[in-house]
Formats: sequence, structure tokens, C-alpha cells
Amino acid sequence: MTGKLYVVGLGPGNASQLTPEAEEAVRNASDVFGYGPYIDRIPERAGQQKHASDNRQEIQRAEEALRAATDGKTVAVVSGGDPGVFGMAAAVCEALEKSPGQWRQVDIAIIPGVSAMMAVAARVGAPLGHDFCAISLSDNLKPWSTVERRLELAATAGFVIALYNPISRARPWQLDHAFEKLRGVLPGTTPVVFGRAVGRPDERIAITQLAQAQGGNTDMATCVIIGSAETRLVERPGTTPLVYTPRGTSRPAA
Amino acid sequence: MTGKLYVVGLGPGNASQLTPEAEEAVRNASDVFGYGPYIDRIPERAGQQKHASDNRQEIQRAEEALRAATDGKTVAVVSGGDPGVFGMAAAVCEALEKSPGQWRQVDIAIIPGVSAMMAVAARVGAPLGHDFCAISLSDNLKPWSTVERRLELAATAGFVIALYNPISRARPWQLDHAFEKLRGVLPGTTPVVFGRAVGRPDERIAITQLAQAQGGNTDMATCVIIGSAETRLVERPGTTPLVYTPRGTSRPAA
Repeated sequence: MTGKLYVVGLGPGNASQLTPEAEEAVRNASDVFGYGPYIDRIPERAGQQKHASDNRQEIQRAEEALRAATDGKTVAVVSGGDPGVFGMAAAVCEALEKSPGQWRQVDIAIIPGVSAMMAVAARVGAPLGHDFCAISLSDNLKPWSTVERRLELAATAGFVIALYNPISRARPWQLDHAFEKLRGVLPGTTPVVFGRAVGRPDERIAITQLAQAQGGNTDMATCVIIGSAETRLVERPGTTPLVYTPRGTSRPAA
Repeated sequence: MTGKLYVVGLGPGNASQLTPEAEEAVRNASDVFGYGPYIDRIPERAGQQKHASDNRQEIQRAEEALRAATDGKTVAVVSGGDPGVFGMAAAVCEALEKSPGQWRQVDIAIIPGVSAMMAVAARVGAPLGHDFCAISLSDNLKPWSTVERRLELAATAGFVIALYNPISRARPWQLDHAFEKLRGVLPGTTPVVFGRAVGRPDERIAITQLAQAQGGNTDMATCVIIGSAETRLVERPGTTPLVYTPRGTSRPAA
């Protein structure tokens, strides 16, 4: 008998941003697989087995989850944010693609969540208010030249850019190179937002301009949003400005 | 005394995809403003005033909400999906930018939600599994030439493309023109997903290829996802295939 595999988005990390269907899928699973810090967010439950793994082991984690579901278990694989945005949904599909045939009979349900870029955007205003893109800055799975080309085309197109996986111990220089690349296309005054661990106790938000932007204080829990040439601030007395991108533009495309 | 303005994402439309903080913000508001069909989703509550408006009246709606909050009310402005993605967050910022100074003293909180593209992606697999962009196909607020240029640059960059506002009675031809434009850049076999009203009783999902894609059955409640050259299907016996974009690529950038 074949079980069920839920691929679940836990949202940014605050229980008030976890959807009821995601909460239910995790609660009902006999086995939960995920990257350690995401697994740590899940309350202990009698009879539920947690399987924490390292963040580079996505395919192996997906395979273990598919194997457990094929054995008849009700399994949840969890991602932070949305599982379809640089999360476990693609890893599960990849594992299935090269899998033994019986894994393909697992009943799979993907449960979306609030993605990090949306949570960060909400904290500062509406920087994603117009056309935008999301780019993983990791060059573990694609050439760095491809990342640079995408940054350049995205800025030229007028997209606001959300960067995921901006930096890690093994990839310390890429974010500063990305800023440098973008300074060749966008005004130095373009707003840049660093949103770390939004909705969690260690949340940290910083707003700067592209000319001054530096990767130094960033880590893997940070989502970086770089405006388009239209993105700007609305000052407010006694509180932080709002960062936003207007809904329309009369600017002709480059 | 100045009140509070919540800009709230209602998610795709199913109560199980509404976050607890969004539910709470709407429940506690004395006045709720929004596009009619979104307002209709909100349960009737004694003492709560609903203000439904047409979908083109975003700035006017934002102004009314800001005025009510300035008068001391606790106000919620609602969007479908996420308010920061082609929703009311940018409209509120725009209204503030050109506003009388006292509106800027309103305490504003933006509550993110599960965006339509993420809900559609989750239903079919992981089409947004790698770098992607979101483009509003409406040329009400930007020139059509800008939309076409963005489509071309996005496809060239290798982004999966999510199209919002793909069609309306006043804009019947744009989606077919977009497909035609993309056929010049992407393989005819590129998967295209039409996701309508995901999570609601009238949900409709269709998967086709770019060569055959037509706008005919689409409406404003539809989000269209067009793959990159890497996007593909994983066939499954007895059920629908999964559509996914692998997490990595070895393909050099164009």
C-alpha cells in the first residue's frame, strides 16, 4: 500500500503566518523530513518521527521521504517559506524523475506557503509592487556566469530583483559581485532591502541604496530585494519610510 | 487620534490557505475595503462595515481606507493572494505618496498571503523551481511595448514566467500576443500551465505546450505559468504528470 507525501511550506517562521492546511499536514504526518532549523520549528508529538538533515542534502532527503511514503507512511517534507520557491518541491520532482517506478505511485500534495520575499516586502512596504523576479544567488547548481547574465537582463528589463541564498560560508563573494554588476545598470540611489529571519525573534531589516550596498552582514536566512529604477521611498514622520515600486510605468523598455 | 490600517493578503481563496494573522486582521477591523469578489469571501460580522469597489478603483479605495484610518478606525484593505504582488500594498503606498501629510501618520501593517502563482505551481508540481519572474500583462499602467520587451528578456534570461492579469474584456488580445512573442524565443514544447481559481470550487487547471497555447479560455482569475527551456514533465501512472523546473542548470546563459 502506498502512502501520502505532503511537501509543505512552513512560511517565514512565525506560527501566525503558517496556513491551516500546512499546519494540518505536518500534524498528521507520521514522519517529517527537513533541514534541521525547519524541523526544529515543529512541536514535538508522540508517535511522530522527525528526520533532520543538512541543507545541501535535498535530493537525498526527497528520496528518503519518497521511500517512506512508498512503504505506506504519511510523510511531510518541509521547507521554509514556499516549497515551490527554491524549496523541496523541485527536489521531490527531480528525485521522482530518476526514481524507481513505484515511487511515482505515491500520492503527492504540495502545500504552498508565504515566501520569504513576500514577508520581507510586507515589512517595508511594497517593493515588489510591479514586475519582479526571484533569483537564487547560489552557483552550486548553475554557473556563476549564468547568474550574472540573469541579473543584468533582469535589471535591464526593469524587474525588481529578489535574491535568495545570497551568501554562505562557501560562497562569500557572490553577493558583492552581484551588487557591483547591478551598479552598472541601475542608479546608485536604487533602494536595497535586507530582510533577515522576518517574523522570528532575531528579525533584522535594513534599507540602503545600491551605491552603498554591501554583503557583509548577510547570511542564508536573508532575502535581499533590489529595486528597479522606479522603486522609491515614502518618508513618514516619526517612523521608517515605506519602500515601494509603483504599479505602473511610463518608462519605455530598454 | 489615528487608527490602524492593515493591508491583508487573503491567499488564493480557500480558508485553509488563509494565515492566522490575516484572518485576525480582517476579523478585528471595523471597516473592510476591497474589490467586490474578495469582500464577498469575508464572513458577515455584526458591527463591521464592508466597502466593496470595482477592480480598477485601487487608488480611490486606498484613499478611502487611509481616510477612515486617519479618522481613528481600524481598517483592513484586502487583496486576493499576496497584497504585495500586484495587489493593494503598492496602491496604498502610491496614495500616501501624493497624500495630505496627516495620512502618513497612520500605523500601517502589511500582512502577506500565499500568492496565486505559488498556489498554481503547488497544484501541478514545481514549475517555479528555479529562477522566475512575475509580470502583469495589463497594459493599463504601462506601454504594451514594455510588456513585450520584458517577456523577451525574461525568456532569454531563462526565467520561468508567471503572468498575472492575463486577460480582461478590455484587453482580449494581449495574452495571445505574449504567447506569440515567446514562441520566438522558447521551444514549442515548453510547458504552459493555466491555473484558474485555485482552491476554490470553480478551480480549473490545464497544462499544454507553448506551441498550442491559446488565451481563449482564460480570465482575470487565471494565473498563467510559462516554463523555461529547462521545464519538463514527470509522467505518473494513473494520474496527471508533474510539471517542474530543475533546481540547477548547466546551460550557459544566452
